[in-house]
Parts: sequence; structure tokens; C-alpha cells
Amino acid sequence: MDNLTGQVVGQTKITSPSFFLGKNFEGLISFGAGQPDLLPPEFVSKITPEREDFYYGPIQGNLDLRKSLAKKIDGYDADQFVITNGGSEALDLIFRLVVLRKGSKVKILLPKPYYYSYVHLAKMAGLEIDYYTLVDGKIDLDVFRDQLKGCAIVLTNSPSNPLGSVQSDEILLEVERLVEKEGAYLVADEVYRELLTKKPVAYRYENTMVIDSFSKTFCMCGARVGYLYSKNKKLIEQIVDMKTHTSMNTSKFSQRLALAALNVDEDYVEKQRLIWKERRDFFYKKMLSLGLDPIKPEGAFYLFLPLKQASRAVVDLFEKYKLIVYDGQWFGAPDLLRFSYALDIKVMEQGIDRFEKFLKNDYVHY
Amino acid sequence: MDNLTGQVVGQTKITSPSFFLGKNFEGLISFGAGQPDLLPPEFVSKITPEREDFYYGPIQGNLDLRKSLAKKIDGYDADQFVITNGGSEALDLIFRLVVLRKGSKVKILLPKPYYYSYVHLAKMAGLEIDYYTLVDGKIDLDVFRDQLKGCAIVLTNSPSNPLGSVQSDEILLEVERLVEKEGAYLVADEVYRELLTKKPVAYRYENTMVIDSFSKTFCMCGARVGYLYSKNKKLIEQIVDMKTHTSMNTSKFSQRLALAALNVDEDYVEKQRLIWKERRDFFYKKMLSLGLDPIKPEGAFYLFLPLKQASRAVVDLFEKYKLIVYDGQWFGAPDLLRFSYALDIKVMEQGIDRFEKFLKNDYVHY
Repeated sequence: MDNLTGQVVGQTKITSPSFFLGKNFEGLISFGAGQPDLLPPEFVSKITPEREDFYYGPIQGNLDLRKSLAKKIDGYDADQFVITNGGSEALDLIFRLVVLRKGSKVKILLPKPYYYSYVHLAKMAGLEIDYYTLVDGKIDLDVFRDQLKGCAIVLTNSPSNPLGSVQSDEILLEVERLVEKEGAYLVADEVYRELLTKKPVAYRYENTMVIDSFSKTFCMCGARVGYLYSKNKKLIEQIVDMKTHTSMNTSKFSQRLALAALNVDEDYVEKQRLIWKERRDFFYKKMLSLGLDPIKPEGAFYLFLPLKQASRAVVDLFEKYKLIVYDGQWFGAPDLLRFSYALDIKVMEQGIDRFEKFLKNDYVHY
Repeated sequence: MDNLTGQVVGQTKITSPSFFLGKNFEGLISFGAGQPDLLPPEFVSKITPEREDFYYGPIQGNLDLRKSLAKKIDGYDADQFVITNGGSEALDLIFRLVVLRKGSKVKILLPKPYYYSYVHLAKMAGLEIDYYTLVDGKIDLDVFRDQLKGCAIVLTNSPSNPLGSVQSDEILLEVERLVEKEGAYLVADEVYRELLTKKPVAYRYENTMVIDSFSKTFCMCGARVGYLYSKNKKLIEQIVDMKTHTSMNTSKFSQRLALAALNVDEDYVEKQRLIWKERRDFFYKKMLSLGLDPIKPEGAFYLFLPLKQASRAVVDLFEKYKLIVYDGQWFGAPDLLRFSYALDIKVMEQGIDRFEKFLKNDYVHY
């Protein structure tokens, strides 16, 4: 319930990303929000609800949608998926499940920097939190192995929000092996993966739960359709049991939209991948050309930049340059900034111009 | 996570309502599921998603929807509402909020019989549970007053699922006064109220939270749009904070459907009210004519019937008569049956015929 660490600088107090929600005035450029500016496949928005969308549906999710997902992911069937209110609900249900299974005083191991909701969800579920620090955006197996001991649940996030870094499949599978040896649960949050590749990671441990979403891949954050899958049907059943009481089925119509998007020609997703790659390379080169030293962005649509007094910069950028950038400390990493490059390249150019001016006029005096 | 008490009789083991989910064979008649068979206003199903439905929305819910709700309920403004994934999510968030505010070892007071999800949600949130027994479906203030002591949160449910009974506004406001005196939170689950009357209860205590839903009033269970409202903006803000992490905004398109339904001519809801009244009176008279003694149904669309060995009856009715009826013990009331009369009168007649045969051929031998 607590806010993540806040700060007061100048006129404005900015304590969390929600400060920027709904801020949308003339001339504002936002490197903030973590959502695609693009749209889902065009015909999706021509779909109307059908009669059955108004009746309760299976808590686990519409069968046709789960079947279509299972077809895309080798080694899983429709029974091993649960459709959730975005990836968020999948995380929330899993964290609570682990506490129900293992009791209190149970420890979760999170990456650092982290997507800020992890911390809130873990605390709300009653988990104790430990972190493994990512080194230049990457998992260091020695660091990871040390931190792993005594943890009941471990989370990986590749591609990473906020880092934009990607772990290799080899590392992810080695992490899985270590987590299995420890007898812990593994949660692999991969909601940005399909923006990069259509090949899923070949997980094989029964207590691995993968989280994915339609939000980023198909540009439909507002529809709130995510999912989780696992080889362990017992886990799936228990999660469905919980969801029976916490929210029941995910919006049937939203699931209909998701199914339509999923069955679209693979071209749509492939085109997105090219767009994200082009934007990423453009943005990274621009940042280098300013003499800056960001963590090399690989996936998602984030660039993470070390910068002294980042919290002060966030306020100055917003107040003086109408530029929204997120504060690294909201992700457990002070003195870094997160840029979302989910923007048209022309808009990005304007934003970078402003950022350059900030560096020359303000940052020099920090 | 545990199933509510189960039973094995004959060939079939029926431990919870989910046994019946998806059962839909030729000739089956269901007095089971708690959802309207009717449909939302016709034009609602002609609506297509708009561009903005695919972007993240306010966690608290679409402003236009909250404004329309506020117009219908005296003394509240749009800021005092949160749109949730059905009434279920509203309950879940509130229960968790109270534990976060008051710490563990916190007691909730639930009515008995109860809607079964209350118990699961309370346990998942870490609440301890106490009950106040309803007497012939009604709150007995002496019983209630005794049980109230030491409780941090109290729930009322009128019209009642599973009882179909309704508490008078006077009683509900007296309950509110007692809960305020105790310094506890009051949760008024009134998702069935609008099927009976458009007049909301005139609550005035700042820690009262009312739960309502579009599911029953507008026959759109599958869209999962519920809401809560409270005079206490601090509570509302904390719930929005939690939802930011647990599920983010409720499906934008589902909210669009809800808004369209809400703005429909009041005639639509008034017609529903007449249908539910007609069905209720028909079903109650029929049950009386069989010499049975159900609790008099007033609201919702449930009739609760005392019957010896109800669990055995549930199995016999399903196996021998293709009739689904819910076991009272799932609602904390053994030796009672819950009938949902969300059925066309002709179908109801057939169902009652079968029930009569069961009474004559099987029940006599119990």
C-alpha cells in the first residue's frame, strides 16, 4: 500500500508512475507509459459481442482461445492454460497460491531492477522479498545461485521491464534447473517476448509457470487479456479454484477479441517485430550519439539510462521540457531513467531534442 | 483452497457448484446457476470497440461510466466509485484492504447462510470468520449485536444469495449504525437489489462500501463489470492503488457495454423487474402447492427449501431426473436446497414436475 520512495523537487512531487496518468496536454511527449502506441489487427475492432459473451464462461478461459494458444506452444494442451485479466492477475494469483501452499514467512526472489508491481503484489500476498541483482541487465548465475537458497518462488522477466535486456534461452533453462533443484516455483514473466521472437522458451520443469499477454504483442492493453501456463495441472486447477472466487471468467468479449487477434496472419506480429527493432536501433544510436551510456536495449520497448540525480531529472524534464520519463528508483534502481520508445520515430526525435537541451542547460548544473 | 464439504452418494460425487459447470446435455433442466437467462438491451450487442478501448484506461474505471453511476445514486460523485471485474473482484479487494489496514488476526462477520465465495475470499485474504445466523432469512438484531463485538469488517447481502430474502432499509441502516459504533467496516453486497427496486439504500457511514454489478441488473454476467462505492475517498484511493497492481483497468470494452446498458431507457430494467416478480410468485406458489415450506422468496432469483438429506437429493435429482439444484451446505446450510428460478415459466413447470416425481418416488424412502 505504501508508495515507492518519493521525492520532492522544485514545484512538483512525483512519487510513482501514476502521477503521469491522464496527463495529456498540448506539446507533451511521453517516454513514460509501458504500452504500444500501435493498434491491434484492424478487423478486430469490427467485431461485435455475441449472445454467449453475456453469460458466465469457464473460469479457466474460453476453450477456443486456450486451444489456439496450445497450438502455438509445443508440449502444452488447452487444460494447461488459464486466461486472466492481463498478466497482472496471473502474477497476483500465482503469488497468492504459493503463500496458500507454503504458508507464511515464504520468500520470493525477484530481479533487481524490477517491474514495480512485483514488489506490491509480493507484499500484498504476504511474501518476503529477496533480490538478485542483474549485472548490465543480465542474470549472473553466481549471484543468482547464492540468492536462491531458501526461496520458495523465483521470478524471471525477459525481456526485462525496465531494462530492455534479454536473457538467452540457455541462461533461462539453467535458471530453471537451479530452481528445480531448490524445489521452488519458477515464474517466467515473458509478456514482451513475442515482440522479439515467436519461439517460446522450451521449459520442462513442472513447477514453472509462464506468464504472457495479448497486451503488448497485439497492442490491446485496455482489453486486459493475459494468460499463464504450466505443465503442472494441479497448479492450474488450484489457480482456477481461486479465480472462481476472486474474479470469475475474464471478460468473454475481450477473450473474443484476443482470439481474433491470435488467429490473424503471422505477418501482423512479424511487422510489429520489425517496427520495434527499427525504433530500438534508432533510439539506442541516438542516445549513444549524445555521449550517453545506456544499457543496450534488446527487447521490450525500454531503454535504461544511468543518470545522476535521476529523480530531480524526472521533475525538470516534466516541468521544463514537457517530457515524461520514469524514475529508476520506482524499479529499485536509483540514478537511472527508464525511457519507453513506444513512439513514432518523428515524435522520438523531438523528444530526444528536448532531452539534449535538458542535458546542456540543466543537467550540467546538477 | 479446500473444497466446501463434499459428499459421495450413488455414482456421483458432487462437492461444489463447479461440478455442474459446462454440464449441458439434452433434456437437462437447471435450477442451478445464479445468472439471468435473459439478455441485455438489444442494441448493446451491436456495439464495436473503439480505438481507445485498446489502450490502458484509468484503474478506477472509465470516467463516463462512473459519472453515469454517480447520477443514479444520491450523495456520491464519480470519484467515489471503482469499476471492478464483477462484484467478485470488489469483494476480494475490500477483504484484502481491511487486512492490510488492520493487520492479521482480524475478524469478518458473515451472514449464514452465505454466498459461498465469501468464505473462500475471506480465507484467502487471511481473515478469521464469524457468522450471524439469519432467522427465516432475516437479520435478527439481537443475534447480530452479540456477534458483532470484536469484528473489523461486517458483510450484509440483501437481497440474499442463496436465501432470496430481503432486509428492510430500516434494518440495514440500523446495522450500519451498529457497525459504525463498533468502528468496523461495512460491506453491503447488493448486486440483486436493482432487480427489485431502483432506490438505493441511503447509507451515510463513511466506512460503508456498497457492492453492485451490471451482471444481474443488465443480464451481462460474462462481461464482468461490477463496482463498489463509498463515501470514504481514502478507502477508494487505496483500493485503486491495489488494483493498479492486481489487474489494472477493467476491460475497457466491457465498460463500454455497461455504459450503454446503463443509459438505456429505465423501461428495460422495469420490465425485468416485472418478469422476476412474475417468476418468483409462480415458483413460490407451485412449491407451496406441493406441500413444501420454502423460505419466502422476495428478491434475487433464488428460493431456499428445507429438505432432509439435501446432499443426497442433489445427486438423485441430477442422476435420475436430469435436474440441477444446489446443495444448501455449499452455502453453510445443510438440509436445504437452493433453486435458481432464472428460467422461463414453461421450463420451470417441467422442472417442478420432475421435482414432484422425485418427492414421490425417491424422497419418501430417505
